[in-house]
Amino acid sequence: MRAVDLIIKKRDGKALQDGEIDFLIQGFVRGEIPDYQIASILMAIFFRGMNLEETVSLTKSMVESGKQLDLSSLPGPTVDKHSTGGVGDKVSLALVPLLSACGLFIAKMSGRGLGHTGGTIDKLESIPGFKTDLSLEELLAQVKEVGCAIVSQTPELVPADGKLYALRDVTGTVESIPLIASSVMSKKIAGGASNILIDVKCGRGAFMKTLKEARDLSRIMVEIGTRMKRKVTCLITPMDEPLGKMVGNALEVKEAVETLKGTGPSDFTNSVLELAGELLFLSGKGNTPEEGKEIAREVLNSGGGLFKFKQMLKAQGGDERITDEAWRLPGASFRWVIPSKAKGFVKKIDAFKIGKAAMILGGGREKKGDPIDYGVGVELLKKSGDFVTLEEPLAVLHVNNRERIKEAQDLVEGAFSFSKEPVEKLFKPLARISNA
Amino acid sequence: MRAVDLIIKKRDGKALQDGEIDFLIQGFVRGEIPDYQIASILMAIFFRGMNLEETVSLTKSMVESGKQLDLSSLPGPTVDKHSTGGVGDKVSLALVPLLSACGLFIAKMSGRGLGHTGGTIDKLESIPGFKTDLSLEELLAQVKEVGCAIVSQTPELVPADGKLYALRDVTGTVESIPLIASSVMSKKIAGGASNILIDVKCGRGAFMKTLKEARDLSRIMVEIGTRMKRKVTCLITPMDEPLGKMVGNALEVKEAVETLKGTGPSDFTNSVLELAGELLFLSGKGNTPEEGKEIAREVLNSGGGLFKFKQMLKAQGGDERITDEAWRLPGASFRWVIPSKAKGFVKKIDAFKIGKAAMILGGGREKKGDPIDYGVGVELLKKSGDFVTLEEPLAVLHVNNRERIKEAQDLVEGAFSFSKEPVEKLFKPLARISNA
Repeated sequence: MRAVDLIIKKRDGKALQDGEIDFLIQGFVRGEIPDYQIASILMAIFFRGMNLEETVSLTKSMVESGKQLDLSSLPGPTVDKHSTGGVGDKVSLALVPLLSACGLFIAKMSGRGLGHTGGTIDKLESIPGFKTDLSLEELLAQVKEVGCAIVSQTPELVPADGKLYALRDVTGTVESIPLIASSVMSKKIAGGASNILIDVKCGRGAFMKTLKEARDLSRIMVEIGTRMKRKVTCLITPMDEPLGKMVGNALEVKEAVETLKGTGPSDFTNSVLELAGELLFLSGKGNTPEEGKEIAREVLNSGGGLFKFKQMLKAQGGDERITDEAWRLPGASFRWVIPSKAKGFVKKIDAFKIGKAAMILGGGREKKGDPIDYGVGVELLKKSGDFVTLEEPLAVLHVNNRERIKEAQDLVEGAFSFSKEPVEKLFKPLARISNA
Repeated sequence: MRAVDLIIKKRDGKALQDGEIDFLIQGFVRGEIPDYQIASILMAIFFRGMNLEETVSLTKSMVESGKQLDLSSLPGPTVDKHSTGGVGDKVSLALVPLLSACGLFIAKMSGRGLGHTGGTIDKLESIPGFKTDLSLEELLAQVKEVGCAIVSQTPELVPADGKLYALRDVTGTVESIPLIASSVMSKKIAGGASNILIDVKCGRGAFMKTLKEARDLSRIMVEIGTRMKRKVTCLITPMDEPLGKMVGNALEVKEAVETLKGTGPSDFTNSVLELAGELLFLSGKGNTPEEGKEIAREVLNSGGGLFKFKQMLKAQGGDERITDEAWRLPGASFRWVIPSKAKGFVKKIDAFKIGKAAMILGGGREKKGDPIDYGVGVELLKKSGDFVTLEEPLAVLHVNNRERIKEAQDLVEGAFSFSKEPVEKLFKPLARISNA
């Protein structure tokens, strides 16, 4: 078998066989097939796509490129969750302990942020002392004891994904549905959980700009799950505006804690409960996702989620006191209030621009390895549907470097659009695609 | 400027600007842009194509990636010729000395063969002593003195082409019209001649399978010539069956010599005269290509071409005696006659299969750097239009390694197809596209 023949086969629109895909993936991971040949076939896949069989094969080959987590020794249902990434998406911070408090087991691996989107690991690392680089053994031991853990993605699992993603990032082949689907699903399959929820973000601030794209991606991921004997639900949720009010690492931790205390913003709280309900249903706790949501709400109201969050912090070396003393989190020197230049109902808040403003203030990375300022970010005082008068504060910038204020302020001001008519708030997922 | 942004621009179907193309090409040649990014944009070009402006820019950038030959000191019209490659295409061996005998100056650079097609340099190297690796200074000095030279392509001219071609070869991006056009034309422009003839092969044995593709390629190459102030004619000639009767290195030298003596096969002789006529016309010798062809025929009949060929051999260290004593060329140990299994008129001879048979006998390379057996090859005794009876010899294999006979014979037998009706022989070019 020669790589160039497989490139030409895909280029000419023919489907690759299981063995051919595996030859490419294992050859690439072992360094036997050079990156220029993989770059070339990735671009051919961008143009020609992959059918379902090929996408499943690709996912399997990626899973088999490394170790897999065996969760069978855990004494209860195992769940996992992934979000395709958004602005202000701190769902995992609240959802993981809440699910654990409901009796589910979750060994969650997360990533770092890039560009306008933040990463769960960066957010957690704003907590003094919090360790995210657990070994697989440590991870399993903690989940057995505490019920949950959130750690950074290890290259031991799905090494093919790290190598492929790094190449796609610099060769213009990120935006390909089969490549995204296999990347997401290979990590979830290797992660070992039986019940998987994928939060497919859709809108201005997300990879998937249209509902059609989000649906196509979701159908493929669910089908991969079916073939690989996992229960999978994709919830397509809007990412036109940031989730919650806080965008920035420590700010988002603070908001997640408030949510676990029952005092978080309603849109974010609802998102967490919606996702929790779905995973409880997949795990057999509740006859419908709605019943699952009710269970989650009760556990949240009982304080069980907050209790589990503190246990997880303690187990991973983090300072538990941040849950009661938010000042122990990294903060910003200045708060810069942005007054409204218009009067009316907030119609939309462009998540991409808000994410970019937070990045410019130092809260995100332009390129991999850039340092992060955990304390800075954007706090939204108004969200869509809210009425604002002229000069009423729209948002607060949390700033350490004053030179960046102008650029961030322009972005935040530009992110808001207004309407004279009342605007309906939208909390509900746009679509649900599931094999359960 | 970032390479990934240019990849995405091309991927999304937008045209690249001059400066952007130059950034990629010079960056690639200097080793600043990695091959995986170039591989990725080559595949995007395969799918999206390039408009004329982009193709001209690419050609210019490639020319500017290295040295250029300055032929202005030569005391007469300068010409150059390129063939897109075929089976049994020994045109340059006869055409270059013939043109020189007609008073034109030609510093011809040629390549080596790969796959089922042969290369002029390999053919010449079958002549004992013949040197093909002249420096640019030696080349120019010889053309001044003798009027012509055929040397191997030097990486000093258009280094971008060598690097790009090596990458295209292993990434499935050879068959792209703008990439082929810029590859061919950059070398011809850098070669310095004012009048350029491109022999665009079309058919089963060629890169361009259809007349439409061949026309598209030709129009672009002629237009590149116009923009870069060269007279260019593309002749689209059939490559459904091999040119002449001989396929194999020393065999083809022998046939070229016979042609210069006036005793070569009629199809091949006619091809050489057709191309010579066109270049004489481009150079102002003759008011039409037909007049040019008559001049070439007279010079051929006078023995001028043969005389020039001997001069060129002598100048480049080759054994001139091969022109009278063909046995001084490398030969094969066996001749294996292939009898016809059918009776009728030869309808077609598949050039691809004949080329492959010659390669299998040892006359060509499967991959770069493979050694070549100069003496072996396929001699066609019948060509399309000829009538054959059952068991009448169709072809002779010139063989050194008897183990390869079976495979080669199957290919040659499979290459022939027959008809009960008489078949018209086709000598004429299929189309002519020119800016003169």
